[in-house]
Amino acid sequence: MSNPVLLQNLKTLFNPHAVAVIGASENPDKLGFHVMKSLTTGRFKGTIVPVNPGAKSVMSLPAFSSMGDFPGEIGLAIVVLPAKLVPGIFQECSRKGVKGIVLISAGFREIDDSQGALLQSTLADLANKAGIPVIGPNTFGMVNLHIDLNASFTPEFSWLPKGGIALVSQSGGISHLMGFMAMRQNTGVSKIVGLGNRLNVDFPEMVTYLMGDPDTRVIALYLEGLDEPRRLMEAAKQTRFVKPVVAYKTGSSRTGNHASLSHTGSLAGRHEIYEGALRQSGVLYVDSAERLLDTARALALCPLPKGREVAILSGQAGPGMAASDVCEAEGMEIATFHPGTQRVINELLPPLALRTNPVDMGPAWYNASAIEGIIRAVMEDSDVDAILILMMFASANRAAVSGFSELLLKWKQQKPVVACLIAPPGIWDEEVRRLEEGGALINVPTPERAAKTVAALWQYEKMKRRNGGITPYPK
Amino acid sequence: MSNPVLLQNLKTLFNPHAVAVIGASENPDKLGFHVMKSLTTGRFKGTIVPVNPGAKSVMSLPAFSSMGDFPGEIGLAIVVLPAKLVPGIFQECSRKGVKGIVLISAGFREIDDSQGALLQSTLADLANKAGIPVIGPNTFGMVNLHIDLNASFTPEFSWLPKGGIALVSQSGGISHLMGFMAMRQNTGVSKIVGLGNRLNVDFPEMVTYLMGDPDTRVIALYLEGLDEPRRLMEAAKQTRFVKPVVAYKTGSSRTGNHASLSHTGSLAGRHEIYEGALRQSGVLYVDSAERLLDTARALALCPLPKGREVAILSGQAGPGMAASDVCEAEGMEIATFHPGTQRVINELLPPLALRTNPVDMGPAWYNASAIEGIIRAVMEDSDVDAILILMMFASANRAAVSGFSELLLKWKQQKPVVACLIAPPGIWDEEVRRLEEGGALINVPTPERAAKTVAALWQYEKMKRRNGGITPYPK
Repeated sequence: MSNPVLLQNLKTLFNPHAVAVIGASENPDKLGFHVMKSLTTGRFKGTIVPVNPGAKSVMSLPAFSSMGDFPGEIGLAIVVLPAKLVPGIFQECSRKGVKGIVLISAGFREIDDSQGALLQSTLADLANKAGIPVIGPNTFGMVNLHIDLNASFTPEFSWLPKGGIALVSQSGGISHLMGFMAMRQNTGVSKIVGLGNRLNVDFPEMVTYLMGDPDTRVIALYLEGLDEPRRLMEAAKQTRFVKPVVAYKTGSSRTGNHASLSHTGSLAGRHEIYEGALRQSGVLYVDSAERLLDTARALALCPLPKGREVAILSGQAGPGMAASDVCEAEGMEIATFHPGTQRVINELLPPLALRTNPVDMGPAWYNASAIEGIIRAVMEDSDVDAILILMMFASANRAAVSGFSELLLKWKQQKPVVACLIAPPGIWDEEVRRLEEGGALINVPTPERAAKTVAALWQYEKMKRRNGGITPYPK
Repeated sequence: MSNPVLLQNLKTLFNPHAVAVIGASENPDKLGFHVMKSLTTGRFKGTIVPVNPGAKSVMSLPAFSSMGDFPGEIGLAIVVLPAKLVPGIFQECSRKGVKGIVLISAGFREIDDSQGALLQSTLADLANKAGIPVIGPNTFGMVNLHIDLNASFTPEFSWLPKGGIALVSQSGGISHLMGFMAMRQNTGVSKIVGLGNRLNVDFPEMVTYLMGDPDTRVIALYLEGLDEPRRLMEAAKQTRFVKPVVAYKTGSSRTGNHASLSHTGSLAGRHEIYEGALRQSGVLYVDSAERLLDTARALALCPLPKGREVAILSGQAGPGMAASDVCEAEGMEIATFHPGTQRVINELLPPLALRTNPVDMGPAWYNASAIEGIIRAVMEDSDVDAILILMMFASANRAAVSGFSELLLKWKQQKPVVACLIAPPGIWDEEVRRLEEGGALINVPTPERAAKTVAALWQYEKMKRRNGGITPYPK
């Protein structure tokens, strides 16, 4: 970020003591209502300052006619007023010494009318002069889960579990999609930030800021168009593989590219060029929102594999075969076990099983200690770099997961463990949650996705080596 | 099927009045326990006949020392005894006039020992001579949801909703995976059949049988190895596109191929050749279990598009772009709306929105009738062959889905409608279920999957045209 004041103030923007809502409302037809609901129901510990000249109070909080009337300092102002009123508000923010703005209002560079672009440029001048970083305009806002700050128009974002993934997105829709996926998969998030039209806070600024954010372990980007791809490349390179950066970019299609221009005022354009450039900067590239989340989660919660040799331990043969196919297609090798490991497995499984990799542990369903013994042998096998554990529930293997839980919980992924432990609703939910929360593994919904996820870890490790990333990945 | 007696008896196998369990048990460590639990808790209306020489009763049902002691006819015998006892049981079945067998026991062609193959060959001779079709050996069994018959060792399969998808699978693991996915997505199933080692009922027999099964609208196959690919091709060709056949095959990798041999006694081998051959026979080929289910569901519940022109109506721009990219990559065209349609949309949305396809209906969140008007105009547009409706929940658009529900429910997919309506758990669940159960649309978890699913419908339609499929797809 060229402007160190903006970067400094970005810290306050995400960690304010007092938050003003300019356009706070009790009318559910106004976004100012939803923003107030997000803040008030989100357990935020700081002061909430509704600003509305026509109200004495909003949602039982004393309201102010203007920010100037509030006696204390305001770290963050969330603005939800019509576009034409925003320049005046920016001037007021500057006078009040506000440190950061989340500008939710639309009607700027993204509209057909050139007045929109002009207005946005006026705002940028005002904000830059005052040293105020601005998230938006044309955004749902942002959420900082670790301080329970929900500065968005979606109160339900406060339901998200806290964790290490920061999602920075050019689309509110993709942010919501990924947020709801994270809720359903119990995936912990640090921040979700909707960049919108990027007045003066763009992807490079966010990457630089998040590099220094102790709550963020992985930076996930959803991109459409980029005005200055080189700046993002520079920022990504600065991460030096200390924090993984993963990106999903749309706009590869003719219509998608056109849509990007209208949506956020940037051409998606030259998709392949961006893809290559981002890869060179150490950004891991993925091709769907689902994969963006799966990959970010794996990078946040698993160690990196030291090599490409994967062990596939499956409760049934079919899922093991499906995972084998995907692993090989994605550049992993199905490990040949060390002879000692193979001997242990041969002792624990009858000859009718697939005892070489991928291992079919089916015949040991009733024998929790056999399954545990196989997993232990593979953990200790220096010829194995990563482990997939796949098991589909059947009435007869109900106890299998709890049978190997303690071993995995104690081991805490000295190698990455990606699992696909799948049962009807309500059956293994508790066991899987305990394993995930104990750092024993991550669980994904299909064997194919498990294979893609472990392969993504290896792809990141390879990229890191190729680029000479030297800083050890923080455990 | 070469043997018409076997095919005739297959009908009884799937629709028996009385079912015997040879090896019924009250010991949870025996599969005979789980099979009895499946039958007794699955609401099956017929007679359940536990056979166990050492028990007077099993799970409160009178038990018999042998099938011969049961006074009535037995349509189906489920066998869960050790392999070496099975030939004797087959002879008993023949004497008793049993019409079909589900042979769950393992230890036949799939084991390293040549005795296994020999035993299987002996059983095949016995069964063929008696005209008894056999599902298995080495299988979890089968389920016929429409008569509440759970002839498997997994009682939870009875939780599945009833519907039109028949899944025939060479893997118990993949069957369970897909069954649990279907439960979570409220996807209706007619039958799940685990073929195991395919004694005398193989994929071609099942395809031929299911062609005549009134409860089945779509046949989904999970394949590993095939002994006689030509026979499956012939059977698939006979379907003449009356019932779609979709297939997912693993074993493309080196290790997967080897695993297939050990798992079910067949080499997966020559993957590409099989893929091409199946396509030529009118089988739609997919590359994951998830896609097998998504595609089968779409083919069961949506009409086929008449062309490749898709309309993408999105509540937010980003998901619309993601879907556009995937649609184009998968061979769909993003439709240019008829001028009349475009005029309606331009009247209903402000200029700041993406009003051309993909349409961003974001600015109409608060205006249910505007969203309804856009959907109606696109429905009636003869330049549109299929519709995607994508909407990520935000507090402010909570009412949007119920706002367009009546229109879609009344229209009942005169063109295919694939949706991605996604909210935090508990918010839109009821609305989405009502739309799906009313035949208004199918809902999938991501915009990318929605796009792939609608593209699969078009790929099937194209294949049908290319192959001269003439029978109209039954609505």
